[in-house]
Amino acid sequence: MGRVTVRRPVLKLSPELERRRPDALAAEEPLELRVGGTPLAVTMRTPGQDVELAHGFLLTEGVIGGADDVLSARYCAGTGPDGQNTYNVLDVQLGRHIPPPDTGVERNFYTTSSCGVCGKAALDAVKLRTRYSPAGDGCRVPMRVLSELPGRLRRAQRVFDATGGLHGAGLFTASGELLAVREDVGRHNAVDKVLGWALLAGRVPLAGCVLLVSGRASFELVQKAAMAGIPVLAAVSAPSSLAAELAEEQGMTLVGFLRGESMNVYTGAERVLREVPAAARR
Amino acid sequence: MGRVTVRRPVLKLSPELERRRPDALAAEEPLELRVGGTPLAVTMRTPGQDVELAHGFLLTEGVIGGADDVLSARYCAGTGPDGQNTYNVLDVQLGRHIPPPDTGVERNFYTTSSCGVCGKAALDAVKLRTRYSPAGDGCRVPMRVLSELPGRLRRAQRVFDATGGLHGAGLFTASGELLAVREDVGRHNAVDKVLGWALLAGRVPLAGCVLLVSGRASFELVQKAAMAGIPVLAAVSAPSSLAAELAEEQGMTLVGFLRGESMNVYTGAERVLREVPAAARR
Repeated sequence: MGRVTVRRPVLKLSPELERRRPDALAAEEPLELRVGGTPLAVTMRTPGQDVELAHGFLLTEGVIGGADDVLSARYCAGTGPDGQNTYNVLDVQLGRHIPPPDTGVERNFYTTSSCGVCGKAALDAVKLRTRYSPAGDGCRVPMRVLSELPGRLRRAQRVFDATGGLHGAGLFTASGELLAVREDVGRHNAVDKVLGWALLAGRVPLAGCVLLVSGRASFELVQKAAMAGIPVLAAVSAPSSLAAELAEEQGMTLVGFLRGESMNVYTGAERVLREVPAAARR
Repeated sequence: MGRVTVRRPVLKLSPELERRRPDALAAEEPLELRVGGTPLAVTMRTPGQDVELAHGFLLTEGVIGGADDVLSARYCAGTGPDGQNTYNVLDVQLGRHIPPPDTGVERNFYTTSSCGVCGKAALDAVKLRTRYSPAGDGCRVPMRVLSELPGRLRRAQRVFDATGGLHGAGLFTASGELLAVREDVGRHNAVDKVLGWALLAGRVPLAGCVLLVSGRASFELVQKAAMAGIPVLAAVSAPSSLAAELAEEQGMTLVGFLRGESMNVYTGAERVLREVPAAARR
């Protein structure tokens, strides 16, 4: 299943040069996730670490809370045009004590809310499903450690090296130890793979940990981090308004625009250990 | 409904400086799209141009083919915590001759395919739903025009200017005339808004047009462009394997890594007018 990249011919053009050559593209294939034989979701993902992806997805959707909640995760029979198993359908059997997930359109939001479809309802839905609140996590992360994370994530992104563009998610301790890095054409999948890895390794809730994502911080990514009990989410680019609101409500630290030695702290600034001379504070 | 940005306090940190100030974040709110009163999808989007978003979504999902297929698109009653309409639920009434869309997990893929869940099945599903094939579109786009598009998209992104990070989609003619630019926290939403604008303006199929996206080119974005009959899709960053495969099957031109004066052409190179001296071709 080494389908992480696919080679294709490409025409490279610039005013000086025209050149045909093979190029590596990040692989993208659909994955259907089934629970007890019932289709739950289809996601376009980079093949590989699909069992981690399934565990991370079910964790961050509030279906499971630990590896023991899953009895088995297996590729289903399902053949492609060439007669081979596609390895694109994964069936998860939950323990008998685990209620099966909702499969409707509304499952990600507001089904439990009285106030209609709005940001507040989305926040409430997460609150109701959070098992591992990061709110009381007393970890502290030095600015210097945070500043080094994007470079370390980037250097660990092997598929990015081959293809020039792929979302990455990295899990670190508060002192900067790298725990896991995953890449995917979908940034939510990269995060699910990292969190699924942590769940299978018995590390959830991820107290004292920092999750770094290579792009923007959306509501969805803050939700995933919160569901895994991660106290610090850092993004290389901008957060959305609802991402910041959810991080605040969940008692998380949200860092954005983490570039070079500067960063923006949107919530939970007490966890970021400053090295700024007192005279420069205003 | 000027909820495109939200102001929040932010702590800006660098080794020299620590400063609290208000900052503008791109607004993110859920939108529930209903068809004939039945929930079809929930997307996290930047509020605004929701009617365009709904039209673009229904076009690119194969539900509608023109503005005449929609009788009405109205915000439903639905109040938030403050008692105000949230403007987050939009109900679309289709013409009587339009079959209502599927709402299951599988609707985006392979329901019509015999070969299981795989890239080939995803390509087949698009093929079956395409009304406006871009395959025969004889337009030609000079390299010079393509090279200028990212800068022109960027300069037209007003919310990006305020927030420092937001996905953008821009629609241009083959000679470089800017038709429409839309921004959103979700790149698929930015594309749906542009395409919905075009549908409402009576411009679909978008023969002879170029769609530029600010990030990567995924399967989903190529699908959306194909469903609107767009012959040329250009991306500032990398395409995925399945994006290139779909573009090839649909007879589209796919350009990636459009940066400065250089670019990679993955499919449909005959539409890109080269300005490379013959001596430099190899």
